Amino acid sequence: MIDSAARRARTIVEHRTFQPTVIAVILVNAVTLGLETSTVVMNSAGGLLHAVDRVALAVFVADIALRLVAYGRRFWVDPWNVFDFLIVAIALVPASGPFSVLRALRVLRVLRLISMVPSMRRVVGGLLAALPGMASIAALLSLILYVAGVLGTNLFGAVAPQWFGDLGTTLFTLFQTMTGEGWGEIAREVMAEMPMAWIFFVVYILISSFMVLNLFIAVVVSAMEGQVMAEVRAQEEEHAAEEQIANRMILEEIKQLRAELAALRPERAEP
Amino acid sequence: MIDSAARRARTIVEHRTFQPTVIAVILVNAVTLGLETSTVVMNSAGGLLHAVDRVALAVFVADIALRLVAYGRRFWVDPWNVFDFLIVAIALVPASGPFSVLRALRVLRVLRLISMVPSMRRVVGGLLAALPGMASIAALLSLILYVAGVLGTNLFGAVAPQWFGDLGTTLFTLFQTMTGEGWGEIAREVMAEMPMAWIFFVVYILISSFMVLNLFIAVVVSAMEGQVMAEVRAQEEEHAAEEQIANRMILEEIKQLRAELAALRPERAEP
Amino acid sequence: MIDSAARRARTIVEHRTFQPTVIAVILVNAVTLGLETSTVVMNSAGGLLHAVDRVALAVFVADIALRLVAYGRRFWVDPWNVFDFLIVAIALVPASGPFSVLRALRVLRVLRLISMVPSMRRVVGGLLAALPGMASIAALLSLILYVAGVLGTNLFGAVAPQWFGDLGTTLFTLFQTMTGEGWGEIAREVMAEMPMAWIFFVVYILISSFMVLNLFIAVVVSAMEGQVMAEVRAQEEEHAAEEQIANRMILEEIKQLRAELAALRPERAEP
Amino acid sequence: MIDSAARRARTIVEHRTFQPTVIAVILVNAVTLGLETSTVVMNSAGGLLHAVDRVALAVFVADIALRLVAYGRRFWVDPWNVFDFLIVAIALVPASGPFSVLRALRVLRVLRLISMVPSMRRVVGGLLAALPGMASIAALLSLILYVAGVLGTNLFGAVAPQWFGDLGTTLFTLFQTMTGEGWGEIAREVMAEMPMAWIFFVVYILISSFMVLNLFIAVVVSAMEGQVMAEVRAQEEEHAAEEQIANRMILEEIKQLRAELAALRPERAEP
Repeated sequence: MIDSAARRARTIVEHRTFQPTVIAVILVNAVTLGLETSTVVMNSAGGLLHAVDRVALAVFVADIALRLVAYGRRFWVDPWNVFDFLIVAIALVPASGPFSVLRALRVLRVLRLISMVPSMRRVVGGLLAALPGMASIAALLSLILYVAGVLGTNLFGAVAPQWFGDLGTTLFTLFQTMTGEGWGEIAREVMAEMPMAWIFFVVYILISSFMVLNLFIAVVVSAMEGQVMAEVRAQEEEHAAEEQIANRMILEEIKQLRAELAALRPERAEP
Repeated sequence: MIDSAARRARTIVEHRTFQPTVIAVILVNAVTLGLETSTVVMNSAGGLLHAVDRVALAVFVADIALRLVAYGRRFWVDPWNVFDFLIVAIALVPASGPFSVLRALRVLRVLRLISMVPSMRRVVGGLLAALPGMASIAALLSLILYVAGVLGTNLFGAVAPQWFGDLGTTLFTLFQTMTGEGWGEIAREVMAEMPMAWIFFVVYILISSFMVLNLFIAVVVSAMEGQVMAEVRAQEEEHAAEEQIANRMILEEIKQLRAELAALRPERAEP
Repeated sequence: MIDSAARRARTIVEHRTFQPTVIAVILVNAVTLGLETSTVVMNSAGGLLHAVDRVALAVFVADIALRLVAYGRRFWVDPWNVFDFLIVAIALVPASGPFSVLRALRVLRVLRLISMVPSMRRVVGGLLAALPGMASIAALLSLILYVAGVLGTNLFGAVAPQWFGDLGTTLFTLFQTMTGEGWGEIAREVMAEMPMAWIFFVVYILISSFMVLNLFIAVVVSAMEGQVMAEVRAQEEEHAAEEQIANRMILEEIKQLRAELAALRPERAEP
Repeated sequence: MIDSAARRARTIVEHRTFQPTVIAVILVNAVTLGLETSTVVMNSAGGLLHAVDRVALAVFVADIALRLVAYGRRFWVDPWNVFDFLIVAIALVPASGPFSVLRALRVLRVLRLISMVPSMRRVVGGLLAALPGMASIAALLSLILYVAGVLGTNLFGAVAPQWFGDLGTTLFTLFQTMTGEGWGEIAREVMAEMPMAWIFFVVYILISSFMVLNLFIAVVVSAMEGQVMAEVRAQEEEHAAEEQIANRMILEEIKQLRAELAALRPERAEP
């Protein structure tokens, strides 16, 4: 029973109009979600937009359900399927009370364009490929951030509570400083009470900038490797292989030459 | 009739003083357009500046018209000609009512220096060559921007309407945040009402920074390819080809050697 | 006596549970130091947190002492040991009077995670490897900063004392401008009194940005060398060596061929 | 007479203590110029500092004079000498009236450390080497800046005069926006009156960022060429040359082999 259901589901899912249909529904839903942000539009067509949204959600649930039935356990192997499942599941949680923010998260469905369009998958795949190289430096940066956070809260918490009042606030201030935004004003306010505070800010900015630079470089080197160096190396390997073949042929010919020459000599031995 | 008109037009257009004259007129027009921004100068020489401007426009229209007659359909093949045509056409639209901004757009004529000076064309051509490699990541970035825009408007529209009031305003705020400008102040205002909002800002900044970095890298790799790697590869190909020729010569000589040796043996068969 | 003490200390230090224990204590201490920043937590568990802190410090002192006894003079050879020693020493200085900031510096102990975890050591080692290449440009940048500092103080000290009042303040303002933060507002205030001041700001920004860019590039080239080019060069060296061996074999065979041919001729000399 | 004066001057200039002495005087002068910025120090030691400054200037004038006499016309060949001459000349201009800013420019003498210390000269030489590659893109960027300047003044001059009031102010605002500083506030003020103004800002930021990126890349490629690729190419050239030599030796041996084999045959012609 399950087998034939799976087979029928697979027939539908692999039909050549299935994916384009789902992509079209995502696009339509993207537009309606955008329109829903405008109170003007909502007043005139609110009901229609909500209806379209519910139809779209039904289509997404059907899409996931069909694929679950079609592929069974193999569905969970592809991380893009897990991604799709999570996004649709978020929308199914009743949006009330502490979960009302989930209603706003409906727009994350539009990100399914990434999982459904193959060229988009490749781009994101390429971007994600650079992350492992960044992992160590990111861990180090987090450590520096934590240490600077505790240090800043202890040193400046009394002086400038709206920026260094507690650990969380300090961490946000440090993240903001790392992006280079608005730290001048913050530093001068702190330095008005504690003139030596510039040491903290300058050292933190130098260290975090240097590490963010190395993060960037990890990504650059990964891209250079994958796209530029790989080609140069492949070309060099190819030439080296051709060289080897040519050399082997030459050696072969010479060996046969020596064989023929050797064959010559015994003949001559007879007087 | 058209043929001789085309021929005469071509004679004028390809005359060695034609292009330098047009370039000189563009430069003069550039200076007068700059002077027209100063009310002081306008009060004393406004009439003269307007006259120069109209003469320059007449020269540009004549330039385009001559080239249209000289090359006919082939005029539209070169995109730089289309660029020139559009820029001159903008100036011909009567500047009144909703089109008064077009009067301000007259200064775009100065960009014709790019289409008329060959070295400038090369530089812009080189810059434009990097755009296709950026296309996929730019599309992904736009998708992320749209999703964050709808999300931000829904989450923060009531809390901070001057920054997240509607989708357009939110998109501008997100673009500004992406350039790293003034987002600290915006985030703190939003966080005053919604303390968890920092998750939105931090995640958005991390994702958009990472993708802008990859956009930069796409351009860097394209430049490295074109200017550095191409040379290394060409040099390697050249050496590999020389190698092949040398190897072939060696094989040839050996083959002839074997042939001579073989020629030797039948002779010796006769006692 | 010292020998056996050294041997026993080495047994403890090199025991497979020693380092993980110290790392665990560092992690626990990291958490307690973070909790100590919160007045809420301090009110309820302050005593416990202080106790844990003192136990952790005792463990660190014991760790350093054991390693000093175990390795004697060789302890000071590894810079990571010196780092550990300094950090623990800071905590031992009585925190009172002008040294009260040292109490806040206790959190630097958490940086010992870098010296104790080998993968972290490698990452930091890699980062530090790029610094020598930056040294010259950093020296030049400091020179430019000093010259601009004296110049700015002399030119703008009277006009905008809160930003250019004395050399130290000017240097901080210039550092802030170099990171691109808030300089527009500062510049316009100065230009309100001295309209030509834009020359100073624009020239300083262009020069310092260009040198910071070259600083970045020094790091990029160092990374490219180490990670990308080294591989390409190694592969090329390998192929060149293989080529040489093949060529030598060919030459060998040919030489033997000539020898055999030469051996042939004297034979034939006899009629 | 001139010859012996030149010879004696050269003896002094090339004496091994001459350059270190001048460098020491520059360093002392650098410190006194820094101290002169502090009113506290000036009150107590102002006379001493002025005296040291005049002695230093005398030493610099003597240095330039000696080198002029020692090398005559060849003095002007080295641009670093011209640099030294200009800097010392600035200090000799009487500092009064419109030239009082020149008194502040005395600190530029400290930049002579670059021309006197050879390693500093190399670093600056390396930095300057990248400028030609940037020339075309810098010219294009200036063109874009001028066009945007005239456009901005015409469009927004009435709306936001403190930022777009005249061409000079607009160009400064655009330069500030290009560094990404404070443009959000400016844009929103303009957009309050002209909602479509965001098109101007977004397009300008995208175009100028893209071109500044290409400026950076011109420097990166220049550095990669000079430091990384040059080595790879040199190594490859070397291997290719070795290959050629080996191949030529092999061909030589084979040719001699054929000659010996040919020598063999005529012998055999005789019955």
